[in-house]
Amino acid sequence: MSEEVGYLGPPGTFGEQAALLYLQQAKLDAQLHPFDSHVEVIRAVDDATVAYGVVAVENALGGAVPETLDAILAATHVSLCAELTLPVEHHLIAAPGTRLQDISIVMSYPNALAQCREYLEAHLPNARQEAALSTAGAVEYAVANDGIAGIGPRRAAEVYGGVILAESIQDEDQNETRFMVLARSDAPRTGDDKTSIAFAVDHDRPGTLIAALSALSERNLNMTHIQLRPSRQGLGLYVFLIDFQGHRTDAVVAEALQALEAQTRFLRVLGSYPRFKAG
Amino acid sequence: MSEEVGYLGPPGTFGEQAALLYLQQAKLDAQLHPFDSHVEVIRAVDDATVAYGVVAVENALGGAVPETLDAILAATHVSLCAELTLPVEHHLIAAPGTRLQDISIVMSYPNALAQCREYLEAHLPNARQEAALSTAGAVEYAVANDGIAGIGPRRAAEVYGGVILAESIQDEDQNETRFMVLARSDAPRTGDDKTSIAFAVDHDRPGTLIAALSALSERNLNMTHIQLRPSRQGLGLYVFLIDFQGHRTDAVVAEALQALEAQTRFLRVLGSYPRFKAG
Repeated sequence: MSEEVGYLGPPGTFGEQAALLYLQQAKLDAQLHPFDSHVEVIRAVDDATVAYGVVAVENALGGAVPETLDAILAATHVSLCAELTLPVEHHLIAAPGTRLQDISIVMSYPNALAQCREYLEAHLPNARQEAALSTAGAVEYAVANDGIAGIGPRRAAEVYGGVILAESIQDEDQNETRFMVLARSDAPRTGDDKTSIAFAVDHDRPGTLIAALSALSERNLNMTHIQLRPSRQGLGLYVFLIDFQGHRTDAVVAEALQALEAQTRFLRVLGSYPRFKAG
Repeated sequence: MSEEVGYLGPPGTFGEQAALLYLQQAKLDAQLHPFDSHVEVIRAVDDATVAYGVVAVENALGGAVPETLDAILAATHVSLCAELTLPVEHHLIAAPGTRLQDISIVMSYPNALAQCREYLEAHLPNARQEAALSTAGAVEYAVANDGIAGIGPRRAAEVYGGVILAESIQDEDQNETRFMVLARSDAPRTGDDKTSIAFAVDHDRPGTLIAALSALSERNLNMTHIQLRPSRQGLGLYVFLIDFQGHRTDAVVAEALQALEAQTRFLRVLGSYPRFKAG
């Protein structure tokens, strides 16, 4: 297995920035490998084309990333081995020498443009907004063309040789994107860990969900995240994704998982991994 | 108050199609009014600029639409008065007379392009993909320019005078988008209703959520939807959005709401409305 880390390309996206942070935190000397979609990243980990994959699972502004979660649930040899939480920062990027008053077109992924609406109205009210397939693609095009600025992450300016004309121009300052790192096995216990599980209940019976949650509650295992996904396997069947404190090898966690299994249609432990600490 | 219905423009989007369906089902003779964002639609209902607003709250492929939910929770005079569930259908649209082999560029909102990946690989492998700010904008541009096709809803072909070259080209056939209709008051009881509520619990205590859900469970009030949103009001505080069967004026629902209020940080009844029936 090659020591490669897959991420959602092209180079210069927020996903590459997350993958680089993981390499640095894990002190890994690996090559980055861009893929065309999160689903392809997950499949590449599943079939051992790459050793690790970094995928976005939740964006405070964009919500959950359902394709990612569905693909993780569909994979057979994929475990979560780390989490990363990055603040969402959009920068205004253009070719060196460009001034704000030179800009007649602002280009980005539509969600990024929408997230910078207030800045653009105040500072570039006459610039035309154009869509791009990715923030990185927008910055690449902007740097190569006069009078155009792209909105993207810091990494895009580095990759495509642009300069940042204005930093952190997003309207909301508290947004974060959560990435998960995938591998073929999860992480060993550190003493400050989290465990992610998925289980199905009949969505229309609050009683079933209550019984499942009681397995955690009775053992004082605090949840850090809950999410609900419609199951692809049948109408009216929902899959809950829950993260809670503890490692699956902790005795109390192992007990809770056994109790949960008895209460749910299926239970899958997606992995245990260290709690993310910035910096 | 003018009898206007606000929706996320421009004309020809999926949102306009949903608004038209609501007018037809409710037998309303009202004008449609496009807005630039869901947030503006909700504010227009809140300050009585329009009588109704139609907004997307959930997309089976794109997940929840968090900006919409946050804006509904922030509004003071907005209630849910109807729900609409529409199958997601993307069509390949171009100027009349265009043949598939004439197309060198396919344009759409990036999510729509991603949702048609398999079709495009099989039928238009050599066409360049370009992003647009909306599906309607893509179709408008495509119809006005030779050799370009746009991906959008049926309504976009009608509005911009295009023809559908290929129908329902999305990879997934079971996806639906759920829209809610907003007004300054909710809907009267029909006997087959749903109620939407929002409440906050400390997200890290499964026990708190269990106590809240028990208020519904003990009264056999089946949930049709559960969603969790991080609260903007404080770190670690989560807002649950739950839809369940029944109208808030039903005695058993009123009782459950009272019991829930005692268990939660805050409780807000977003409205009761008839269960959606297609056709």
